[in-house]
Amino acid sequence: MKQQLSIIKIGGNIIENESELFKFLDLFSKIDRPKIFVHGGGKKANQVLEKMGIATKMVNGRRITDAESLDVAVMVYGGLTNKKIVSKLQSLQCNAIGMSGADGNSIHAHKRPVTDIDYGFAGDVDGVNTNLISNLLKLELSPVFCALTHDQKGQLLNTNADTIASELAIGMSTTFETTLYYCFELNGVLQNFQDKNSVIKKIDSNSYESLISEGSIANGMLPKMQNCFHALKNGVKEVRIGNLGLFEKENTNYTTLVL
Amino acid sequence: MKQQLSIIKIGGNIIENESELFKFLDLFSKIDRPKIFVHGGGKKANQVLEKMGIATKMVNGRRITDAESLDVAVMVYGGLTNKKIVSKLQSLQCNAIGMSGADGNSIHAHKRPVTDIDYGFAGDVDGVNTNLISNLLKLELSPVFCALTHDQKGQLLNTNADTIASELAIGMSTTFETTLYYCFELNGVLQNFQDKNSVIKKIDSNSYESLISEGSIANGMLPKMQNCFHALKNGVKEVRIGNLGLFEKENTNYTTLVL
Repeated sequence: MKQQLSIIKIGGNIIENESELFKFLDLFSKIDRPKIFVHGGGKKANQVLEKMGIATKMVNGRRITDAESLDVAVMVYGGLTNKKIVSKLQSLQCNAIGMSGADGNSIHAHKRPVTDIDYGFAGDVDGVNTNLISNLLKLELSPVFCALTHDQKGQLLNTNADTIASELAIGMSTTFETTLYYCFELNGVLQNFQDKNSVIKKIDSNSYESLISEGSIANGMLPKMQNCFHALKNGVKEVRIGNLGLFEKENTNYTTLVL
Repeated sequence: MKQQLSIIKIGGNIIENESELFKFLDLFSKIDRPKIFVHGGGKKANQVLEKMGIATKMVNGRRITDAESLDVAVMVYGGLTNKKIVSKLQSLQCNAIGMSGADGNSIHAHKRPVTDIDYGFAGDVDGVNTNLISNLLKLELSPVFCALTHDQKGQLLNTNADTIASELAIGMSTTFETTLYYCFELNGVLQNFQDKNSVIKKIDSNSYESLISEGSIANGMLPKMQNCFHALKNGVKEVRIGNLGLFEKENTNYTTLVL
């Protein structure tokens, strides 16, 4: 029987709120099995860009990672946010180790090809170094991944944190029985976006299609759900979406996704 | 017989010069034994402080690490510089992993006590997690340490990179036959500071005392040499000081320090 592994991605709004972040880190540190943490950067990168007088480049409403923005992403995601999380986890007796995809060649990617838009230094994941990450877990380390990968040719790449979490979960599911958690400010996937208590408890492939056609899954939730089902179709056992209550015993108010 | 280990610290002037840095990284990647890389931050942190409009605090000519400066140090040393080095080493088939002292609880320290000067978030090293670092080396990883430690209570600390290198060398010498390299822009310790070819080939405890009284070792070199002899007195086999030629075969133009 495969050992269980939890891969947990937390959203930017939790990262930015120190008391919420510390509450989460406390819950994370108490998970008594192999675990991996994935974080995005929140708005801190925007603040640093602004302070440094670097304009945020947008094309068709989408942010472009030029060389200067990439440097700031590496500083904020890979440096400030990642090391603060790691040092806080260490104080909670969780032996965390901060990682980008370049560290240990853990996640390799390629620069997104230029089509009608040139996204700049944005990475699409090619693969996960399951062997290296398994070895770190065997040392009882808890890897903390920021949203950066590399192309194995010396180029760092800005990469969507939801995607990093699902690709890690897919890669690790060859060795572990993997559950993927997306933890954010909402209680789960909502039937009615204006009613925070309308959590849909369970979504499978069939009800997923219905929810899309009903319009319950839209906007920011759509790519997240696509990541979830991509993970489920590729070996991940279960995906859970909810707020910090995901990690509290007795709580069942979250969304579970299965095939 | 203990296995050999090389611990190599490079100076800020090499970090700042991309062609020198890449030349060094190429030489480092070719070292065919367990190896650890330690880097400071160079002037990039000052540039970021300036761009962000954060004043550098100085007391009695010494820089003070206040909370804002620490954040910038964490961004630049732990993020930008460290991850760029790691991704470049990966492109050279060297399986590098970036580390601060918080990662894997690898180097723990305490905030320097306030005496006549309050240095702020400056760390004095208490110990090295030899077991964790040995395990990473067994996985054929090459740790790349930036100049940051932590206090195990959630506080990151800015720490002198020369000190990190010597403390790592001392800690690892319980398990490995450790050679410590300080690599910078000069050919070695110079008899006459104005003659770059006046390299002193060998310094031992006796000649060290004479050189100090003659004034050959002064200014920036003095704390570096103190770090070297501290390391030698605590189990490190040999220290070498020189430029990139330290890692080129046939070259003997550098300073070797022994007890």
